[in-house]
Amino acid sequence: MHHAIGFIQDLAVIMAIAGVVTVLFHRLKQPVVLGYIVAGVIIGPYTPPFQLIHDEATIQTLGELGVVFLMFSLGLEFSLRKLFKVGATAFVAALSEIVLMIWLGYEIGRWFGWNAMDSLFLGAMLAISSTTIIVKALSELGMKGEGFAQLIFGILIVEDILAIAMLVLLSGIAQTGSVSAGVAFATLGQLMLFMTVSLVVGILIVPRALDYVARAKSDEMLLVTVLGFCFGFCLLVVKLDYSIALGAFLIGAIMAEARSLHRIEKLIAPVRDMFSAIFFVTIGLLLNPTVLIDYAWPIAVITVAVVFGKIVSCGLGTFLAGKDGRTSMRVGMSVAQIGEFSFIIASLGLSLKVTSPFLYPIAVAVSALTTLFTPYLIRAADPITMRLARSMPAPLANTFGLYSQWLASIGPDSGGPTIFSLTRRIVLQIAVNLALVAAIFLGASYSAPYATGYLSRWLQTDDMQRVVLWSAALVVSMPFLVAVYRKLDSLALLLAEVSVQPAKAGRFTSAIRSTISGLIPIVAMFGVFLLVAALSGGILPPFGLMIAVLLCAALLLTVLWRWCVKIHATMQIALRETFEEPRDHS
Amino acid sequence: MHHAIGFIQDLAVIMAIAGVVTVLFHRLKQPVVLGYIVAGVIIGPYTPPFQLIHDEATIQTLGELGVVFLMFSLGLEFSLRKLFKVGATAFVAALSEIVLMIWLGYEIGRWFGWNAMDSLFLGAMLAISSTTIIVKALSELGMKGEGFAQLIFGILIVEDILAIAMLVLLSGIAQTGSVSAGVAFATLGQLMLFMTVSLVVGILIVPRALDYVARAKSDEMLLVTVLGFCFGFCLLVVKLDYSIALGAFLIGAIMAEARSLHRIEKLIAPVRDMFSAIFFVTIGLLLNPTVLIDYAWPIAVITVAVVFGKIVSCGLGTFLAGKDGRTSMRVGMSVAQIGEFSFIIASLGLSLKVTSPFLYPIAVAVSALTTLFTPYLIRAADPITMRLARSMPAPLANTFGLYSQWLASIGPDSGGPTIFSLTRRIVLQIAVNLALVAAIFLGASYSAPYATGYLSRWLQTDDMQRVVLWSAALVVSMPFLVAVYRKLDSLALLLAEVSVQPAKAGRFTSAIRSTISGLIPIVAMFGVFLLVAALSGGILPPFGLMIAVLLCAALLLTVLWRWCVKIHATMQIALRETFEEPRDHS
Repeated sequence: MHHAIGFIQDLAVIMAIAGVVTVLFHRLKQPVVLGYIVAGVIIGPYTPPFQLIHDEATIQTLGELGVVFLMFSLGLEFSLRKLFKVGATAFVAALSEIVLMIWLGYEIGRWFGWNAMDSLFLGAMLAISSTTIIVKALSELGMKGEGFAQLIFGILIVEDILAIAMLVLLSGIAQTGSVSAGVAFATLGQLMLFMTVSLVVGILIVPRALDYVARAKSDEMLLVTVLGFCFGFCLLVVKLDYSIALGAFLIGAIMAEARSLHRIEKLIAPVRDMFSAIFFVTIGLLLNPTVLIDYAWPIAVITVAVVFGKIVSCGLGTFLAGKDGRTSMRVGMSVAQIGEFSFIIASLGLSLKVTSPFLYPIAVAVSALTTLFTPYLIRAADPITMRLARSMPAPLANTFGLYSQWLASIGPDSGGPTIFSLTRRIVLQIAVNLALVAAIFLGASYSAPYATGYLSRWLQTDDMQRVVLWSAALVVSMPFLVAVYRKLDSLALLLAEVSVQPAKAGRFTSAIRSTISGLIPIVAMFGVFLLVAALSGGILPPFGLMIAVLLCAALLLTVLWRWCVKIHATMQIALRETFEEPRDHS
Repeated sequence: MHHAIGFIQDLAVIMAIAGVVTVLFHRLKQPVVLGYIVAGVIIGPYTPPFQLIHDEATIQTLGELGVVFLMFSLGLEFSLRKLFKVGATAFVAALSEIVLMIWLGYEIGRWFGWNAMDSLFLGAMLAISSTTIIVKALSELGMKGEGFAQLIFGILIVEDILAIAMLVLLSGIAQTGSVSAGVAFATLGQLMLFMTVSLVVGILIVPRALDYVARAKSDEMLLVTVLGFCFGFCLLVVKLDYSIALGAFLIGAIMAEARSLHRIEKLIAPVRDMFSAIFFVTIGLLLNPTVLIDYAWPIAVITVAVVFGKIVSCGLGTFLAGKDGRTSMRVGMSVAQIGEFSFIIASLGLSLKVTSPFLYPIAVAVSALTTLFTPYLIRAADPITMRLARSMPAPLANTFGLYSQWLASIGPDSGGPTIFSLTRRIVLQIAVNLALVAAIFLGASYSAPYATGYLSRWLQTDDMQRVVLWSAALVVSMPFLVAVYRKLDSLALLLAEVSVQPAKAGRFTSAIRSTISGLIPIVAMFGVFLLVAALSGGILPPFGLMIAVLLCAALLLTVLWRWCVKIHATMQIALRETFEEPRDHS
């Protein structure tokens, strides 16, 4: 019972000092996160009373659990429904912010004479704003319910997704040294595929399982089940070489569709607060104040760049996406800081050993400074907008006004929204089903080394083993292939209807239409076959055998067609039900 | 970011398997705790699929955090007020249970030919019932609100206190090999002193601090503050060589007096559930099923002994304390199991390396079996009482009836309660103040090695250093000494009033009374001085200097008397306020 004393002492020191400092920071009306970091600096080895931590490895491990719980909570708050609502505006604003900030950060880094990798990581660190800080600042200012706040939350969600993609890309670049467009595309494609499949499969299984457990009214059991899913999925994600942060975020987003979401959020909050406190303290532990003095100049430059860069990039993006000047300014001013994601990226660079050690303290210092400014910036948004409007030269103001009018004239209300939204919906469904088919064949290829070892007991030749694996994948993916075919069919009908007008085609109208609607699915399915063949290269049987398998599959399909349609419909209904079910409010 | 993978994998395995098994156990209507232990056995190294845990040291450390949080939660539920209410009955029942079960366990151990230490630890393991299991069983049976349940909770609280004392004694015995009555008495005296001082000082400081933090309405800050106090106090306790379990329990009992208790309980529950799940799983990890088969016979004997021993000892104790037969049987049947405390004692024995390794799996097996029986036993209490009453021989039944009548006749209503309760109250106040004085002088002695090193810069001779330290302790303890004197004064007046009756003493009445009331405080204060001198032996100045110090103190006291009385009154009022303040209900 006595060998954990050193560890208990560490926790005691961390929690006691963090407690005192955060209460102090709260009294000074500063964010609690800053308090944790300051507590970490006090505890850390660079400031008197010197090193207070004994078992630093365990504390760092617990701090990484803090990242898991932070990202998991973020996922719980992330909502596919909310994202669908704010849609395009948030995407444009977030993308313009991220692209400009990465470029700005990279250029600043090169200007200081840093190497390319440091500059790239600096850019990535400046790209993403801090959800925690913004939510806290807006709720303290009582603005959480206003319209522009909803748009900001949408931007933050898009940022989170793009940040995940950025993490994956950065890991790739860091490990290979460079990145080609093809590799980037393949990486992002794989990521999208993985995210789509996880979300679809996860949302089919996890919320149901949680709601089943939740019915027992035992908080303890629900918590253990939630943690089991969370860590289990994180483990899977890590085994697939993605970051644990991505796993935690995705499983959080999946659990966000459970009816018992509110209970889960309440249960997970204290656990997250405990471990995230440790995480932020470990950030402070790594912070050497003398580095801050040595790098005072870069810190100042980067801080100014973050504030002005984000206001301009995100504000301009919002404006270009069709919002008025006041809203744009408010959005830009609100996101003008960096936070927890920057630390995650900085520690990624450190743990991959590709960035210089000074980058981490700079990120912390810039985050601390910009966090300090955030509430003042949000409050200053309206006065600045008014002053800008007054002092703007008339021609410029006119141009802005014309742009707004033009944008309003081409809005979705002016065109035929029904055919457009119908098409978009069908394309989305095809994409999701194709993703599932691709995942099944990729999974079969991935498991081939293990499966063939097992199969070789019965099947001697390599070819026959491939036939068995490939056929199995084909049978499993059949419901989704059938669904793809049926959706392609309706899409083709729709396209034929729209593209071939009786006025032009005259008496050939129906003939051309039926040709188009008949041809498109066949051509497209051939494309699907090529895709599948490319993805399952490792287990593709030789040509002759493959034709035989396809013929057998076709025969099977004639028998199972109705069953395939039915099982797919059931799954689709189940998915839709999960989304449309009301949540328990407590 | 990638070096914690092994640890994440461990957590994933633990949480995922624990989740599945507990849901299964819940469906089978078995306690969740059993599910955790079974999950641990599955994960553990003795059953296929063999060792699933990579970083066992970290997992064990987290499991020990589970003990901290379990005991802390127990402390939060512990209430000094509740204890005062159930009072004597609970104490008699708990003491009779513990004494009989330790004796029974020891005898069984010796009968199996085990050594004395194993037998003693077996006895201690069987002594304490499981609060968790009982609370869960009673609430599942819907009996939590009934009268006998309140009595059981009282018994459990007394058991917890006695268990803490037992932990301290067992550690002492284990380290020295034997225990003399004197050592045991000194150990228990120190423990009582430490507990009294911690409770008084803690209740003066901690609830106020928590309520101050709670006003900020930030759950995160409150949680961090609670954890800071919890681990900080645990660290202090460990440094004083007491068990961490004691520290967690005491600080929980102190925090139970905070107004924001309900918020704290809600915040701490998920953290406790997470870590206690890990703790129970680590118990299963240590469990070797083959040991269970090898020791099937002792397990069976001990299980029977626990069930019948507890029913008889605790039931009889309850009956002797004046409850009717039905209540006694219900109480006895409810406490007939062992649980988490037995594991704590078993792991204490293992970590001190004084017990044989087979004791742990036996404790787990007996706990599992008796836990299984608990709900059935509680339900069977009433039928068995009725059958016993019918089949009891008439003379025996009459004896029981007479005992109950006799007990009722000597109840507290028959004597003069006012003087008795007044005396008891004054004696209690004197004891608490003396404890504080003793703690101050002990603290000064304890800090002497550090303080003298510091003092030696200014004071060369050892004697002068002692004078300074001893005087400082005397000045700090002055308000409490004054309080002791004033309480002794009123006690003497009271005693003089009661013991000297005018009928006997005649015209000397007032003279004798004033002599007695004048003499008692002086004699008693001389006793106090001897006690202080004995406790502060290490820093006691030589006789001549001490007299000088005492004279100075007397001079100082004439000036500061009023101030001493005032500061003591303020503290007393503050303490009473904390107890009498209503809690927030949420």
